[in-house]
Amino acid sequence: MTRLTLDTINPNVRAAKYAVRGELAVKSEEYKAALAKGDTSLPFSQVINANIGNPQQLDQKPITFFRQVLSLLENPQLLEKEDVLINHLGYKTDVVERAKWLLKHVGSVGAYSASSGVPAIKESIAKFLEKRDGFPANPANIYLSAGASSGVNTLLNTICAGPNTGILVPIPQYPLYTATLSLLNAKCVPYYLEESKNWGTDLGAIRSSYEKAKADGVDVRCIVIINPGNPTGASLPEEDIRGVLDFAAKENLVVMADEVYQTNVFVGKFHSFKAVLRSLQKENPGGIYDGIELASLHSVSKGMVGECGHRGGYFELVGFHPDVEANVYKFVSIMLCAPVIGQCLVELMVNPPRPGDPSYELYRQEYDGIFQGLRERAAALHAAFSDMEGVECGPPQGSMYLFPTIKLPQKAVDAAAAEGRTPDEFYCMRLLEATGICVVPGSGFWQKEGTLHFRTTFLAPGTEWTGSIVKFHKEFMDKYR
Amino acid sequence: MTRLTLDTINPNVRAAKYAVRGELAVKSEEYKAALAKGDTSLPFSQVINANIGNPQQLDQKPITFFRQVLSLLENPQLLEKEDVLINHLGYKTDVVERAKWLLKHVGSVGAYSASSGVPAIKESIAKFLEKRDGFPANPANIYLSAGASSGVNTLLNTICAGPNTGILVPIPQYPLYTATLSLLNAKCVPYYLEESKNWGTDLGAIRSSYEKAKADGVDVRCIVIINPGNPTGASLPEEDIRGVLDFAAKENLVVMADEVYQTNVFVGKFHSFKAVLRSLQKENPGGIYDGIELASLHSVSKGMVGECGHRGGYFELVGFHPDVEANVYKFVSIMLCAPVIGQCLVELMVNPPRPGDPSYELYRQEYDGIFQGLRERAAALHAAFSDMEGVECGPPQGSMYLFPTIKLPQKAVDAAAAEGRTPDEFYCMRLLEATGICVVPGSGFWQKEGTLHFRTTFLAPGTEWTGSIVKFHKEFMDKYR
Repeated sequence: MTRLTLDTINPNVRAAKYAVRGELAVKSEEYKAALAKGDTSLPFSQVINANIGNPQQLDQKPITFFRQVLSLLENPQLLEKEDVLINHLGYKTDVVERAKWLLKHVGSVGAYSASSGVPAIKESIAKFLEKRDGFPANPANIYLSAGASSGVNTLLNTICAGPNTGILVPIPQYPLYTATLSLLNAKCVPYYLEESKNWGTDLGAIRSSYEKAKADGVDVRCIVIINPGNPTGASLPEEDIRGVLDFAAKENLVVMADEVYQTNVFVGKFHSFKAVLRSLQKENPGGIYDGIELASLHSVSKGMVGECGHRGGYFELVGFHPDVEANVYKFVSIMLCAPVIGQCLVELMVNPPRPGDPSYELYRQEYDGIFQGLRERAAALHAAFSDMEGVECGPPQGSMYLFPTIKLPQKAVDAAAAEGRTPDEFYCMRLLEATGICVVPGSGFWQKEGTLHFRTTFLAPGTEWTGSIVKFHKEFMDKYR
Repeated sequence: MTRLTLDTINPNVRAAKYAVRGELAVKSEEYKAALAKGDTSLPFSQVINANIGNPQQLDQKPITFFRQVLSLLENPQLLEKEDVLINHLGYKTDVVERAKWLLKHVGSVGAYSASSGVPAIKESIAKFLEKRDGFPANPANIYLSAGASSGVNTLLNTICAGPNTGILVPIPQYPLYTATLSLLNAKCVPYYLEESKNWGTDLGAIRSSYEKAKADGVDVRCIVIINPGNPTGASLPEEDIRGVLDFAAKENLVVMADEVYQTNVFVGKFHSFKAVLRSLQKENPGGIYDGIELASLHSVSKGMVGECGHRGGYFELVGFHPDVEANVYKFVSIMLCAPVIGQCLVELMVNPPRPGDPSYELYRQEYDGIFQGLRERAAALHAAFSDMEGVECGPPQGSMYLFPTIKLPQKAVDAAAAEGRTPDEFYCMRLLEATGICVVPGSGFWQKEGTLHFRTTFLAPGTEWTGSIVKFHKEFMDKYR
């Protein structure tokens, strides 16, 4: 008998769910390993991980300027051979200059940085925010993190004070939120997004969730917004953001804005919560918006950067009490610091080559190429879904995902129940077994009762896999109709 | 009034203490910034961060082989110019081969890996463990982590089931343990190490702490050992490890072995808990040792590698129940994966150049040079302490630290109390203000009542700073005698 069993470990860990990397993902890894060992018994020759926004695992190439700089940071001895770099390896002078500048401010990328990040990198981020938003940003309120996930973890750990703390979370949501709230034994107060309005926020839905939780005695402290949405792709119009901030100001809620998909926008325009908040404050001097506490997060993992494996990100705090910031600082210091090479990548993301810089042309070309490629793949996948019986999907708006609704025949629902699965899980499992394509059942993101969805990235190249989904779906429907 | 205040945030975060990066560290950063801006009003011209084991911040150079490989992983386009690498940049063929091998198995370092790490890297670690211990290791039980800290966080999160869970922690200890237990609202059950026996484990002390906690109704589940010790530097003899494993087997305790300083050993020999456990199991077939659950941790941050900023590490689980491992896996998957370039650095650490490889000579020379340098500095610092009034310090044994006892005059104790500080904190603050040298008061690691210590690294180059400590100490003692 082991000392630790399922019954005795931390019940909060046991209760946490994380479908993005759950049973389906594990099975897809097993298939991959089997294929790599030459197994020919499977009905497919390739596994496609459409379950996770992992661009460079599929087709996306890293941006040359970023990686050239990183290579010099990893081996600064190369800077002693500047002529070789430039004449034989095609490094431009701005690559060399940026590497020198970063090394001057960072020291070795093998050393711990200050707990909240390298000061010079925090200054670069502040400049980027000022330029993006048209309002000043203070480097002292910026914290580098190991991807946005680690930032969310820090913030929820600080905010959640026990089982009675409630956090408003959009549904469907990226399961990091519900999983972290499980770990902290705090309450997820779900509010539903409006599928019929392109998954926009519905203030009525937010208010009624909030009122209900309050009536149940829950201490609701914070509202999470994912914009652009994951898994929905929705990019919120400015009036939605104003509405959320107004609600937060009146109800005294901390606002947590997950903005990691801010450059993955096909329809409309990205509005940052910080910019809209500062506008509201400017329009209403001394008004209710002055007291809002806003945390906003960004990452190198998504957008045209797509460098998930480097675990880089940051969050900015606005309006937080200094005592609370001191505790945020202490929390991040316990994990010492974010990966330093990832911090450098954040600097490159927020301060890329500009027009006229030697590396600019190639940077622009690569960046635009990735953007166009994502848009085209999203459109192709969307077109395929449009032809599928019982599948409905709004036009692609952004992020890296489509999140179609599926209507499954009763026989399929019964077969799922017989296996102890939800119908969407059952569907996704059969899809994986038949095609090697791994997507995530909508239940992993939570959803309105009685509705079924799945989330797929549109990152995989080519159209063959789209065809496989169409073919599988037809056969599945024929079988269970 | 902000929504979040010191009184309303997570009380576990508020209660956590982390002295290694606390008030003194923050003040040292302020001094650094002032010096960088040309401030000449301070009585020193340089800040020396002897508060944290951060080799590359001070003098330690990264190992060339490691960084050459990493530069190619960051920019694989360089591999298209192999002749330039070899003929103009001094890269050896084994550097190129290793980079190709890693890229083949990792894919892009910008992609998320599998949650528990890249399979091929886990296989390399298993081979290293087999060679080190003489017993097999299973890659399936190895988990890559963002430094050992993140591994400790994962393990304690899984093990601690609430306020009644107790974890035996050596005192003095690295404060990651007490801080994480605070965050989890679990109980630290301290057991004192024996300063008079070179800070070895004292089974009597372990047993009496354990019995006392048990009598108080605490569910003591796990014993943490830091070997070689932090902050003590002690390297445990095999009989101490056997004693701990025997105690753990009889009392059914999980063993967590923090072995990040396994190569920083000046006196005696490093014995891994895994090797000693397997030996015990072999000697007693079917005996009480078969059921032991052991987690052991390692990292790229310490040793001659010293790559803290890369946040690389791993842990191996032995004897854990598969259901529990599944929950460990889920926990790490919520944070997606350890930084991939850091995972690659783990691979390089466990599989460095071997005799006969083109990079071997330089690797050996760099590795040995770092080791000798650390030993010489430790000896010089120890000699300085020997001459200081009221200071006692055992001979340097390993890790990166000395942890001298200090006896302070009553007037200093009173002055400290008047400032609301512990005497050791007061002493360290005055040291920082007078010399720019930042060390950590012993109270940050906990200590026996009535004893005072401080922890200093011996990483900083030169002897000037040692002289500054001696001079400060004399003046301090003269003032307060």
